[in-house]
Amino acid sequence: METSTRVPNPFAKRVIVVDWGTTSLRCMLVEPDGEIARETESSRGIRFIADRAFEPELMNALSSWFDEFGNLPVIALGMITSRNGWIEVPYVRCPATASDLADGIIQRRLPNGADLYFLPGITDTTRQPFPDVMRGEETQILGFGLDKEATIVLPGTHSKWAKVGQNRILGFQTFVTGEIFALMSEHSFIAKAAAKSEGIDWESYDRGVRVAENATAGDAAFLTQLFSVRTGMLANELKSEEMQDYVSGLLIGLEFRQARDCGWMKAGDSVGIVGNDGLNDRYRRAAAIFDLVTVDGGEHAAIAGALEIFASVKARSDAA
Amino acid sequence: METSTRVPNPFAKRVIVVDWGTTSLRCMLVEPDGEIARETESSRGIRFIADRAFEPELMNALSSWFDEFGNLPVIALGMITSRNGWIEVPYVRCPATASDLADGIIQRRLPNGADLYFLPGITDTTRQPFPDVMRGEETQILGFGLDKEATIVLPGTHSKWAKVGQNRILGFQTFVTGEIFALMSEHSFIAKAAAKSEGIDWESYDRGVRVAENATAGDAAFLTQLFSVRTGMLANELKSEEMQDYVSGLLIGLEFRQARDCGWMKAGDSVGIVGNDGLNDRYRRAAAIFDLVTVDGGEHAAIAGALEIFASVKARSDAA
Repeated sequence: METSTRVPNPFAKRVIVVDWGTTSLRCMLVEPDGEIARETESSRGIRFIADRAFEPELMNALSSWFDEFGNLPVIALGMITSRNGWIEVPYVRCPATASDLADGIIQRRLPNGADLYFLPGITDTTRQPFPDVMRGEETQILGFGLDKEATIVLPGTHSKWAKVGQNRILGFQTFVTGEIFALMSEHSFIAKAAAKSEGIDWESYDRGVRVAENATAGDAAFLTQLFSVRTGMLANELKSEEMQDYVSGLLIGLEFRQARDCGWMKAGDSVGIVGNDGLNDRYRRAAAIFDLVTVDGGEHAAIAGALEIFASVKARSDAA
Repeated sequence: METSTRVPNPFAKRVIVVDWGTTSLRCMLVEPDGEIARETESSRGIRFIADRAFEPELMNALSSWFDEFGNLPVIALGMITSRNGWIEVPYVRCPATASDLADGIIQRRLPNGADLYFLPGITDTTRQPFPDVMRGEETQILGFGLDKEATIVLPGTHSKWAKVGQNRILGFQTFVTGEIFALMSEHSFIAKAAAKSEGIDWESYDRGVRVAENATAGDAAFLTQLFSVRTGMLANELKSEEMQDYVSGLLIGLEFRQARDCGWMKAGDSVGIVGNDGLNDRYRRAAAIFDLVTVDGGEHAAIAGALEIFASVKARSDAA
């Protein structure tokens, strides 16, 4: 089941959407009908931009599109709007509507006269011990749709589980699964015997997910489960070439288990999977093992969400 | 409260105890009365020994003691007895007595005629999904004493919680807390803003432990709690120089929480803390926050344990 990701572009002309994260810069030229006409991606993430020279970097990245199509409006989102980015856009609080997000936009003008709109991230101040935060994923959640009650997972380095409904993002929680996977596979002693493999060994992946799903209370401790990578090898139950995908399954399985313990879902529920970072197949498979029905958020939820926020700006300016 | 760590040396002469781990080599010359007369420590752990040249390495490390005191018996323990070590000594199964461990010893002779005894590690085959294992810590547990029912924690890279009683090591569980701390503080994005600090900031440490201890079910997810290092900074609640000890407290607190969930202890219990890797102060403090009474296992529990195993060998050979 795939939800529609194409939203009519409220500018009724081409716009540029810039998803500028910590490690990558992605620029999309969006047609009036919401279709992506051109797309570029580079590793010029904000941490690689010296002296905060973001404006020349962006002008350089977009110069050929500006030359060809004129000074199109630019919508920027992601870590570029954070404390380490170009301009720190304050977080909008959950529960948040598209209109609340539109209120949080900070507008600037580029040297060529093009309008530049920085979208805000959101915060869930009910989380303990500190408010939880996201920047960028909220547009993907909007693109998925807020009208029906739903739980959504956004796989990633710091993956997010969110609840939507009543046309609002109701709340969310971060799980640092992808980062722990990277640390484990690149730097840990536990997994040092792991061989790099080509393709995905789904059998080993599923096994890892099942270990996380099946563990009884006495064996479910996260800090213990990670050690099973080592003990499995010592017991001749895990081969070197199986370890990488076993760890991946184990960690994603532990995320699902913890999300279940935190009340994000229970067996039999339907869960939306939104994102395009290559992890969706893994999350879909884990969801099936946790007895969940999955709804695919589509590839371009971020575009749909960004346009949705602008539709809300436009609706108000039309009414004024 | 400190338990006695001095056990009469069953050889009734000097012995050498070699604790040879992954990253370090520690040699101790033990007097007939159990006292450590000399001690050396180097970074010649088994992973740094090329071509498995363990014998020349050991002869070199011990040559001056052999010259001075003759061909003393040598007791070797730790990862040197593992698959990647000198000789793989099979694990002894829990529940295990000192005598069971003595049965698992593998004896060799060094080029100078000195006897070399490799002590076995132990395995708890009741753990899921794979049997849990330790090599070296079992001698520390023995040194703590097996006669009274007790729960013991051995802090470390891969720390262990164990139950003893009825003169047996009844079972144990590994938590990879120290390794996750190293990964977080050296390589993670989450904690990249952490400043190195001199000494220990106990206030930040305690705060981390309390966050782990106090978390309600909805916020207790391990993969979420780690993110509090980042969200605390964003909320201006954690300063850069506080992060390192906050993470340390958070992780050790999560270990205690998970150990409690797995049934190793509950509030009001007494827990032994055994080890000498510099973490004991941190574990004692976490124990107090979890409302536990701690019993100090002493600094030289490993020596006491190694001699205990030999007392058992000696008792049998005397009886034979």
